[in-house]
Amino acid sequence: MNNLVDVFLNIRNSKFFNTLVIFIIIASAIYAGVSSYNLPENYLKLLIAFDYVITIFFVFEILVRIVSEKSFGKFFKDGWNIFDFIIVALSLIPVGAGSAIFVARLLRIIRVLRIITVIPAFRKIIDSLIMSLPRVGFVALLLFIFTYIFAVIGTMLFADVDSLKWGNVGRALLTLAQVATFDDWGAIMGRVLQTNQFAWIYFVFFIIINAVILLNMVIGVIVDVMISENNKPSIKETRYEK
Amino acid sequence: MNNLVDVFLNIRNSKFFNTLVIFIIIASAIYAGVSSYNLPENYLKLLIAFDYVITIFFVFEILVRIVSEKSFGKFFKDGWNIFDFIIVALSLIPVGAGSAIFVARLLRIIRVLRIITVIPAFRKIIDSLIMSLPRVGFVALLLFIFTYIFAVIGTMLFADVDSLKWGNVGRALLTLAQVATFDDWGAIMGRVLQTNQFAWIYFVFFIIINAVILLNMVIGVIVDVMISENNKPSIKETRYEK
Amino acid sequence: MNNLVDVFLNIRNSKFFNTLVIFIIIASAIYAGVSSYNLPENYLKLLIAFDYVITIFFVFEILVRIVSEKSFGKFFKDGWNIFDFIIVALSLIPVGAGSAIFVARLLRIIRVLRIITVIPAFRKIIDSLIMSLPRVGFVALLLFIFTYIFAVIGTMLFADVDSLKWGNVGRALLTLAQVATFDDWGAIMGRVLQTNQFAWIYFVFFIIINAVILLNMVIGVIVDVMISENNKPSIKETRYEK
Amino acid sequence: MNNLVDVFLNIRNSKFFNTLVIFIIIASAIYAGVSSYNLPENYLKLLIAFDYVITIFFVFEILVRIVSEKSFGKFFKDGWNIFDFIIVALSLIPVGAGSAIFVARLLRIIRVLRIITVIPAFRKIIDSLIMSLPRVGFVALLLFIFTYIFAVIGTMLFADVDSLKWGNVGRALLTLAQVATFDDWGAIMGRVLQTNQFAWIYFVFFIIINAVILLNMVIGVIVDVMISENNKPSIKETRYEK
Repeated sequence: MNNLVDVFLNIRNSKFFNTLVIFIIIASAIYAGVSSYNLPENYLKLLIAFDYVITIFFVFEILVRIVSEKSFGKFFKDGWNIFDFIIVALSLIPVGAGSAIFVARLLRIIRVLRIITVIPAFRKIIDSLIMSLPRVGFVALLLFIFTYIFAVIGTMLFADVDSLKWGNVGRALLTLAQVATFDDWGAIMGRVLQTNQFAWIYFVFFIIINAVILLNMVIGVIVDVMISENNKPSIKETRYEK
Repeated sequence: MNNLVDVFLNIRNSKFFNTLVIFIIIASAIYAGVSSYNLPENYLKLLIAFDYVITIFFVFEILVRIVSEKSFGKFFKDGWNIFDFIIVALSLIPVGAGSAIFVARLLRIIRVLRIITVIPAFRKIIDSLIMSLPRVGFVALLLFIFTYIFAVIGTMLFADVDSLKWGNVGRALLTLAQVATFDDWGAIMGRVLQTNQFAWIYFVFFIIINAVILLNMVIGVIVDVMISENNKPSIKETRYEK
Repeated sequence: MNNLVDVFLNIRNSKFFNTLVIFIIIASAIYAGVSSYNLPENYLKLLIAFDYVITIFFVFEILVRIVSEKSFGKFFKDGWNIFDFIIVALSLIPVGAGSAIFVARLLRIIRVLRIITVIPAFRKIIDSLIMSLPRVGFVALLLFIFTYIFAVIGTMLFADVDSLKWGNVGRALLTLAQVATFDDWGAIMGRVLQTNQFAWIYFVFFIIINAVILLNMVIGVIVDVMISENNKPSIKETRYEK
Repeated sequence: MNNLVDVFLNIRNSKFFNTLVIFIIIASAIYAGVSSYNLPENYLKLLIAFDYVITIFFVFEILVRIVSEKSFGKFFKDGWNIFDFIIVALSLIPVGAGSAIFVARLLRIIRVLRIITVIPAFRKIIDSLIMSLPRVGFVALLLFIFTYIFAVIGTMLFADVDSLKWGNVGRALLTLAQVATFDDWGAIMGRVLQTNQFAWIYFVFFIIINAVILLNMVIGVIVDVMISENNKPSIKETRYEK
């Protein structure tokens, strides 16, 4: 039994195995992409066979990694391992017809996210993203509250004029998301400006508040990262390569 | 009497009370949002009853906070308290028909802004925003002056060609706001380019001046924040959590 | 004679005079804006009279400043003084009919730029903008060279398909300015994608090169400003208030 | 022979020669641009003659530089020299009719890139761009992986509703590039929102993930550059002028 663990450990640590995993994930990504084109029957059969190969390989790979960790508990302590396990486990569920096929295809493409677990550089980027979330979170929440208040006011002011864009709070929120990203906001404003001469105050006010809060958030994150970098013992290491 | 103050102080400082306030504010926000959908009569009555409950609770909450401060003067020294008091006081004004209903609904949603007072993290973000305003202010004013000058020139050049966009200074200012945010500026330029071959100089010039001033503003704020952070006694504290 | 200099010096340094100058400039800005609306005859006459008052006041103000400097040479050493003098001198040229009226109106609005000279905060912002120009200049030039090369290639590839957007280098440059600012680039690409399946490579390539160079420029300026701020003797002074 | 090397070395190092090279490159850029306009026959002949002059001059210039380096090996050690040599060598290939003319015109405009080699400031900007690529690379790759996964999901969800935008992975990727740059994304979402009420989740999610990763990348590069600048022996030198 111990021998098997050693063999699996060797497999897991071999450069060839890791390269193979990356290659298989990329292949599964291309496969998921190619499926979106209209293909002749023969190719479809080939693709289905290829899908089975990928699934079996992923099960094998996760088994290798579990066994080489020696204990189940140790394997599941790492969040990334849990992430991998769930993705592989879900792809084993047999699917029927109808919407189940949709779910199967969804899992097939989400499987590609496993590339993050396999390549350490990606794992580090995601880790640093997750770490910056609490800093960004509160400002983003405040931004949402302001946008929500503007959305409710928007429905009160413009629902009768342009019901498609301002008919209810849901639509108004999406419309304000558009305005916040400067997408076609001139036209959206133009439509309500015809009946409400002062509608521009609403838009200009929203854009300015939005921009100021966003600018504050970006600067906050830059300053935070800078300070935490300065406080590190050796500052010669660059950010993504350590 | 002193007992009542203690009771109210206990209420104000209790975690349950603060959580309840946050919960009620969120409920009032959802309520304001739901009102924008077409609802059956029964629900409407329920909503109106719910609105009374929220109003009464807010009056009670502000009374608790005033009493627990012991003196009126002390309570009104904090700008945030004044902000809260005004919002609650306004929502007590009885409204008649017509545009008064609009005002009532407006107050109902503006009430949601009280979430900023209740959650300290939000209050800090707004405080830091207000502190950065004077730095941003002068550059924003300069930007407005340049835009205004361009707007007047725009009316002189393009009012005859595209009167909807350049008919008077007001319209030209809104059009330039669109151009500054890169919203559909190609089409706006295209329309005047047909009669005025050199109109592109106007647009390219405006976009470059705009971008340079904005870039200068953003960098100014970043450098300001960085320097003020560096001059703090302990730089280990992060920005939003201290 | 010396007495007159003292009187003028007192006028120039008085708070009232400076406030009056600012007020007159703002009034002249509003006047230039109001002129763009269709006004009844009576108002127009009033505006013309008001214009004379402003012109005479500006001449008086520049004379005050020249005299109080004691010597012509000293006055014209400051670039801002030359700027003011030229604007005021130009507005004195009598105008005839036709396009001369256009020039007169143009001068009237450019006169508003004098607000920069009068308010020191604005003068400092413009000074710092001009100082950052050489740093920005070379990157901007490089950006233009790349855009120009893409524009020539664009005319070669797409002139036959969409001659309005890619007919010659001039049009292609304006089209690429639109693409660089993400304005409607999806539609511009869509039109040439129908005949040239690989046109997306051109657009994606251009957008990436553009974004990378712009990002490099912004970061370069931020780092430059930061370093020059750090090297100043006292870093406690903030940026716009010193 | 040694005399000739000295003469060529003198030519290469003379200010006049370098200015001439820059002038010729700018002339060749203008020439490439002018060719895109419809010109009368006579001018065309002139332009073709001018093209020969530029080609011959470029061959002469590269010979001067090779000879003055004394050895072939030394010349080809510098990447920029190889870059120059390839461009000049390619422009010597005789072209026939048809698509070959297209290639000839392409080479003619790519020749303008030689301005980077000639002006040191440009070479430094490009060098610093290339150095920042590995830092940017991994985040860009991660961004692409996320976009690809979203593209596949997009084809699954929306291919039937809006086949022009979501028909296959290729189209979906271009559509998401549009959404990521906020170009007309409101309209793209609007079209699929009619049949799929919850399509907005897909778009909002994509835009947020996209923005967070991009923000992380920009901040990463800023911090990297800042730290590397701080670690330099003398920090007084500015960034582009050393």
